[in-house]
Amino acid sequence: MTEVLIIGGAGMVGRKLADRLAKDGTVAGRKIDKLVLQDIVEPAAPAGAQFETRAIAGDFSKPGLSETLVASKPDIIFHLAAIVSGEAEADFDKGYRINLDGTRLLLEAIRQVGGGYKPRLVFTSSIAVFGAPFPDAIGDEFFTTPLTSYGTQKSICELLLADYSRRGFVDGIGIRLPTICVRPGKPNKAASGFFSGIIREPLNGMEAILPVPRTVRHWHASPRAAVGFLVHAAGLDTAPLGARRNLTMPGLSVTVAEQIEALRKVAGDKAVALIREEPDETIRGIVAGWARNFDPKRALDLGFKPDASFEEIIRIYQQDELGK
Amino acid sequence: MTEVLIIGGAGMVGRKLADRLAKDGTVAGRKIDKLVLQDIVEPAAPAGAQFETRAIAGDFSKPGLSETLVASKPDIIFHLAAIVSGEAEADFDKGYRINLDGTRLLLEAIRQVGGGYKPRLVFTSSIAVFGAPFPDAIGDEFFTTPLTSYGTQKSICELLLADYSRRGFVDGIGIRLPTICVRPGKPNKAASGFFSGIIREPLNGMEAILPVPRTVRHWHASPRAAVGFLVHAAGLDTAPLGARRNLTMPGLSVTVAEQIEALRKVAGDKAVALIREEPDETIRGIVAGWARNFDPKRALDLGFKPDASFEEIIRIYQQDELGK
Repeated sequence: MTEVLIIGGAGMVGRKLADRLAKDGTVAGRKIDKLVLQDIVEPAAPAGAQFETRAIAGDFSKPGLSETLVASKPDIIFHLAAIVSGEAEADFDKGYRINLDGTRLLLEAIRQVGGGYKPRLVFTSSIAVFGAPFPDAIGDEFFTTPLTSYGTQKSICELLLADYSRRGFVDGIGIRLPTICVRPGKPNKAASGFFSGIIREPLNGMEAILPVPRTVRHWHASPRAAVGFLVHAAGLDTAPLGARRNLTMPGLSVTVAEQIEALRKVAGDKAVALIREEPDETIRGIVAGWARNFDPKRALDLGFKPDASFEEIIRIYQQDELGK
Repeated sequence: MTEVLIIGGAGMVGRKLADRLAKDGTVAGRKIDKLVLQDIVEPAAPAGAQFETRAIAGDFSKPGLSETLVASKPDIIFHLAAIVSGEAEADFDKGYRINLDGTRLLLEAIRQVGGGYKPRLVFTSSIAVFGAPFPDAIGDEFFTTPLTSYGTQKSICELLLADYSRRGFVDGIGIRLPTICVRPGKPNKAASGFFSGIIREPLNGMEAILPVPRTVRHWHASPRAAVGFLVHAAGLDTAPLGARRNLTMPGLSVTVAEQIEALRKVAGDKAVALIREEPDETIRGIVAGWARNFDPKRALDLGFKPDASFEEIIRIYQQDELGK
């Protein structure tokens, strides 16, 4: 009897993870018998699942919910719940309540089950744990000096995850996701939105705004690669991690110019012509503080697989979102 | 009107800091008008103070106490309160309650005062934020992967201090103290106790036990140097720190053999003869996980002063504790 819990199951990555689990029917080499999906709104069950599914709507940061979620002793827990960077910066209390206290309540709920219960807990962290100035490529031993409250909260949860694992209360692994690209859905005003927008909008015949110079370099992974990281982390032998339970996931470091050339190869000049440069100094300033490149040796050695190229990232969007 | 608050004022470093403030009468270039000392037991007022002193006994981790402590808007706050590594490891809940929640309550109490109140907060962190394996000398950008709950709690508080500072709620600086040597007082059973014991006991005509090989290297600062770090941090311009508010303090990296040779120079062969080797595999194992050496360039550039030599560390003990 293998039970899987996804906390934050209604988000973009959570839904894709649930779909992947439904398609595979297994995770970490085990047949899935039951999948529980939690989020602040009721998550949809994945189509075609051959196992029992259950959806729970509720605020993860309210005392009591995590106790309910772990009462049935799920074997594998994916913790994807968070409010995003912009919201955590705008609402200081809400950010700490959900991103920090919510995670701590989960860890405590797991610990309080007792009786040898020690689930695999896969926690999604973020490259926002790092803050400029950076070396050219950030190594696995670079320190975490976040420049946002969101990054601070993720960093703190990484430390808690490692300590609760060291003490034997949980078998945790934290994975720092690159920026997800191409993010499906509508254009949005997030500072990072253009990295997906300049690919997604042209592929849908719409104009896209590019607010930064083409020399800007950033760190990307497709939604499919991100789900692959989560699934791989669920089955990984954590013994070689020792007390260092948090890993920077492998991404692709590309410039905006390289993104655009990949789009040209996949969709032609007509698509590229839909990108309109409209410099925005505010966005340029924000992006300047973000990590550009990493040297994620540990994760690669542990078998985490990045996308092969930015062209592949574009093709994954076409296949998974446009049905091409 | 300058008010100074010492949280954890009854501890060894807290008492020496209060004595130093009483002697100087000033801190950060300002005349001290009032000094408030808090601890779980009522701290003693420093002798000879020319300013008002007030002692408060109370549990720093109980909601409400920090509000009381900051209601009078102290200009400079030294936060030294913590339970030690061994206790935080033995009592998981108590460690998190005091070392993490207590600090968070303090930061929140400061934030809630509002009205532009933004005190200088000097937080004592620890080299326990680092965990083996280490490079030969740990640089300022090395990551924090603590191997104890105490180190985890200190690491988390460093992150909170930086975020609350970045948001403008406090003007924080975290200083990672080396192991304090020569620690005054009686022999104790802490794993690190022998580093002080092999100096202190012979200087007092008593036998000392050495449980590790003489090749063991460690990172030391005298109590006087530690107080110097605190006072320097209180007056430092924090603008050059940017968002990187936590600093490894400069210490002396010496082997046990070098400690013993310094003792020989200061107190002769008779003192050294009082050191008895009694290997203890448990202690040797614990100490093997500790940092041996650092390259604390940032702190040195910012004017933090280490002890000049291990002989000086011994002489400071003689002067400050034995009245020599």
